[in-house]
Amino acid sequence: MRADYQKDGLLIVISGPSGVGKGTICSALRQRLPELTYSVSATTRAPREGEKEGVNYFFKTVPEFKKMIEHDELIEWAQYVGNYYGTPRRFVEETLKSGKDIVLEVEVQGALQVKQRFPKGIFIFLLPPTMEDLKKRILHRGTETEESLADRLGVAIDEFKQIHHYDYVVINDEVERACDRIEAIIMAEHCRKDRLILSQG
Amino acid sequence: MRADYQKDGLLIVISGPSGVGKGTICSALRQRLPELTYSVSATTRAPREGEKEGVNYFFKTVPEFKKMIEHDELIEWAQYVGNYYGTPRRFVEETLKSGKDIVLEVEVQGALQVKQRFPKGIFIFLLPPTMEDLKKRILHRGTETEESLADRLGVAIDEFKQIHHYDYVVINDEVERACDRIEAIIMAEHCRKDRLILSQG
Repeated sequence: MRADYQKDGLLIVISGPSGVGKGTICSALRQRLPELTYSVSATTRAPREGEKEGVNYFFKTVPEFKKMIEHDELIEWAQYVGNYYGTPRRFVEETLKSGKDIVLEVEVQGALQVKQRFPKGIFIFLLPPTMEDLKKRILHRGTETEESLADRLGVAIDEFKQIHHYDYVVINDEVERACDRIEAIIMAEHCRKDRLILSQG
Repeated sequence: MRADYQKDGLLIVISGPSGVGKGTICSALRQRLPELTYSVSATTRAPREGEKEGVNYFFKTVPEFKKMIEHDELIEWAQYVGNYYGTPRRFVEETLKSGKDIVLEVEVQGALQVKQRFPKGIFIFLLPPTMEDLKKRILHRGTETEESLADRLGVAIDEFKQIHHYDYVVINDEVERACDRIEAIIMAEHCRKDRLILSQG
């Protein structure tokens, strides 16, 4: 008899209100865990300087994007400030089948869509230590007026209400500490009893 | 609003068939995670050289031990090769209340008793990579005859059947790797959504 862990990959969804630092955390995670695969989103927004097709995003026209929706090629999608964003399905499914873990960085609405299709995914909600921190982070971006700040905070509060759909909460008090927690969650999930395989030999 | 993790400690039960290396793993864990509390068992067996009261065991006479059973002072106990072994309840409960995690190293039968009382504990089953490894480990102790080896393996196989009561399986392929996994499990469990506390302020 031989004991081993299941070979198919984990789908790890990192989500949370915008402004909580998902992008920063995921960049740090990429550095620390290069062996993981990171999903690349499709978007209709114009490339910013330095952004590369297939690395930062798959850049699509609006008709192309709409066709992807129609053909069920996205596991989640949303419109945000006039642009479409979504996660291509095929890359996610192929990565999982090949036995690699894949990380998705998505908005809360997107995460709920992913959960419908991948109920066995690991859903991690990033939280700021305090509301005050979230305010500071949003203001720090410097792109918000007083009014849009209030809007953003309102949305964030609505998003908090979805926290019960998630498995884990990672408080983003410090980037490295938050990454430690995410790394631990991934390792622990690989050790869950359901993933054990006993074989002859 | 302030987000925080629950302050009460986790009960971490490390178990698995005898011969799998529970003792070695727990010693290594003690070195790596001195901030955890490790439960000290009560036993009626005579102290071996160098063993200290309250450090390695609480040494008890048989009547004292039986009194502890009667007074419900043990969260699990068993008889093994003519001696009694058990886990005193008060120390475990006080440690958890004080907000510290406590690690229990127990036999499979004991773990099942602990689960009755502490269903929220984290139950980790240590497994050898192969049956062949378990045989080698048992033989390596040098205390087994061919016959008692067969007995021990038979017991181990029965114990494997209890694996569904556990949350995690840690394959003990290498001590440090097994400890990495246990450490990750503890950190991840602290991040579970149910442990989140949101407060005003």
